[in-house]
Amino acid sequence: MMSYYSVKWLGDHLSILDQTLLPNEEKYLRLTNYRDVIEAIKSLRVRGAPAIGVAAAYAGVLAAMETSDTALLSHTLEEIRKSRPTAVNLMWAIDRISSILKQNSAKPQAEIVDALLQEADKIFHEDVAMCAAMGKNGNRLIKDGSAILTHCNTGALATAGIGTALAPIFAAHRQGKKIKVYAGETRPLLQGARLTMWELMKEGVDATLVCDSAAAFLMSRRKIDMVVVGADRIARNGDVANKIGTLSIAIAASKFSVPFYVVAPSSTFDFDTLDGSGVEIEERDPSEITKFRGVAIAPDGVKVFSPAFDITPAYLITRIISEKGVFEPGQHTIRRKSAAIADENT
Amino acid sequence: MMSYYSVKWLGDHLSILDQTLLPNEEKYLRLTNYRDVIEAIKSLRVRGAPAIGVAAAYAGVLAAMETSDTALLSHTLEEIRKSRPTAVNLMWAIDRISSILKQNSAKPQAEIVDALLQEADKIFHEDVAMCAAMGKNGNRLIKDGSAILTHCNTGALATAGIGTALAPIFAAHRQGKKIKVYAGETRPLLQGARLTMWELMKEGVDATLVCDSAAAFLMSRRKIDMVVVGADRIARNGDVANKIGTLSIAIAASKFSVPFYVVAPSSTFDFDTLDGSGVEIEERDPSEITKFRGVAIAPDGVKVFSPAFDITPAYLITRIISEKGVFEPGQHTIRRKSAAIADENT
Repeated sequence: MMSYYSVKWLGDHLSILDQTLLPNEEKYLRLTNYRDVIEAIKSLRVRGAPAIGVAAAYAGVLAAMETSDTALLSHTLEEIRKSRPTAVNLMWAIDRISSILKQNSAKPQAEIVDALLQEADKIFHEDVAMCAAMGKNGNRLIKDGSAILTHCNTGALATAGIGTALAPIFAAHRQGKKIKVYAGETRPLLQGARLTMWELMKEGVDATLVCDSAAAFLMSRRKIDMVVVGADRIARNGDVANKIGTLSIAIAASKFSVPFYVVAPSSTFDFDTLDGSGVEIEERDPSEITKFRGVAIAPDGVKVFSPAFDITPAYLITRIISEKGVFEPGQHTIRRKSAAIADENT
Repeated sequence: MMSYYSVKWLGDHLSILDQTLLPNEEKYLRLTNYRDVIEAIKSLRVRGAPAIGVAAAYAGVLAAMETSDTALLSHTLEEIRKSRPTAVNLMWAIDRISSILKQNSAKPQAEIVDALLQEADKIFHEDVAMCAAMGKNGNRLIKDGSAILTHCNTGALATAGIGTALAPIFAAHRQGKKIKVYAGETRPLLQGARLTMWELMKEGVDATLVCDSAAAFLMSRRKIDMVVVGADRIARNGDVANKIGTLSIAIAASKFSVPFYVVAPSSTFDFDTLDGSGVEIEERDPSEITKFRGVAIAPDGVKVFSPAFDITPAYLITRIISEKGVFEPGQHTIRRKSAAIADENT
């Protein structure tokens, strides 16, 4: 267990750690209605595809506590679904909550709330278990003494459990492997500097912060043994949508023959999207780049292009690690156990 | 001419634009003695290797106005030389001023001042001319309608003229070519966001700010036709030391077949360094990454690796553009005119 959490249901409300205040302040917010959850998702107080999915499921519960009108509730679920366009876990969590609502729509409000809460708890606990399994599967690929580069935040702050791409790192560290982690700061919102470094230091992992643009240089100097990143969405062919900057790292990793691993739960697999060209790329507000806490760091009225994600093509990805095993990209969608690659590095 | 300047002699004093206040304030400082010039160089109020060289030369003139003691004046020139230890143009400017001082040391103070001023003006005008020539040479490679990616600041703010890597952009714009420029913000010190965007907007160039890590994504979407960057040092074989992040862009450019141009005056060519492995990489203070105007953006006590430069190998560079012409990397050190490549794109 970690000494902190991103999202947790506390009997009658949702408690989230306000990640916009990290690393300066560790403050938990009490969210008592779905509108506050939508606001928290939109403003990145809760972030990371799995954590967003869990938060959205509980937002559905909070919405159900407000109304006995199931048509209105269905409408609200669609409103929650739209809070972040790229996060597939959000769609998937809302699909599950909607489906439970449909099955129970004739029941009294209290029973609907109970049914939705049961499903949200299930999503939460499944995520905890998936994180543990990803940690175990990924840890098998980490050699003692490895230097590992990561990007953005994919830890306990991004999930209900110990994380996605950070899960193997935490698992290796707990097992006593001596590892060194380099974290890219992850502009514009600095999730690497603010969140990943905070998590790694809190867990006692040897961690070093670098500018995103230093990743290629580190690899050119043979300072990186492997890259682990998360994913916001994985297309059927293995193309991965992840935080802007991932593609840049993958290209450099390929050039310097550094293994590049994507660690993501199977809920991130999008069977309906054939390849990366079908993924909508969310554009973020220019002020995230042009201002820092209200102070201008670019001229007034500057034009900005700020894609939140990029697409890393499957052929640049060494393996996709999910809770089900370790897969070659493209093979990850095959649900059969046999598609997983046996412990190749152990 | 630009509507602003980095450094200019105004009859009896040196006027510099305080770049630490950009983009929020356009304030020119009146420097009436060499101590103020040293302070301005040390605190990056004036920056960019060529502009520093020019400022240092005029600092020598201001020092000569203070004393008729040429031994003391020689000592002061050495003090100016030490204001930024790695700037090669600074050494070279002080060498030239010192040499003029030696030739004139028997003359009255007023004549010494005149002689040094004449040399400083010469350094200034040579830089203006080199920038214009780089602009002309580089502009030949820019097609009408091009989208150009650049990194860090290499414009009029970094030189006495219209810049190094930005010179071809300004030349193309003035000629009426419709171009679109993407500028990487350039972490950690944000020279791209603060300075390059300010210059491009002031000149009316269509400019868009992006995070450094978005460069590969832009190229993957075919939004970039060419990359232009400057150089801090170019080894004999054509390897280029430049602002951290340059290597990452060069690797992506190579992958997506985007031409990658380095624009730098021949004073940047280092004949004594055979290749990039011989270039020492300066490491910057961690606080440049961990704090913004005193506000922590990473946990307290975080470990940081902050190389100021990286090395882009010659084979990733399409052409090196200097005031002498357009060269294949490795051929740039040949001083003969014949090494320059004839107008290939015109």
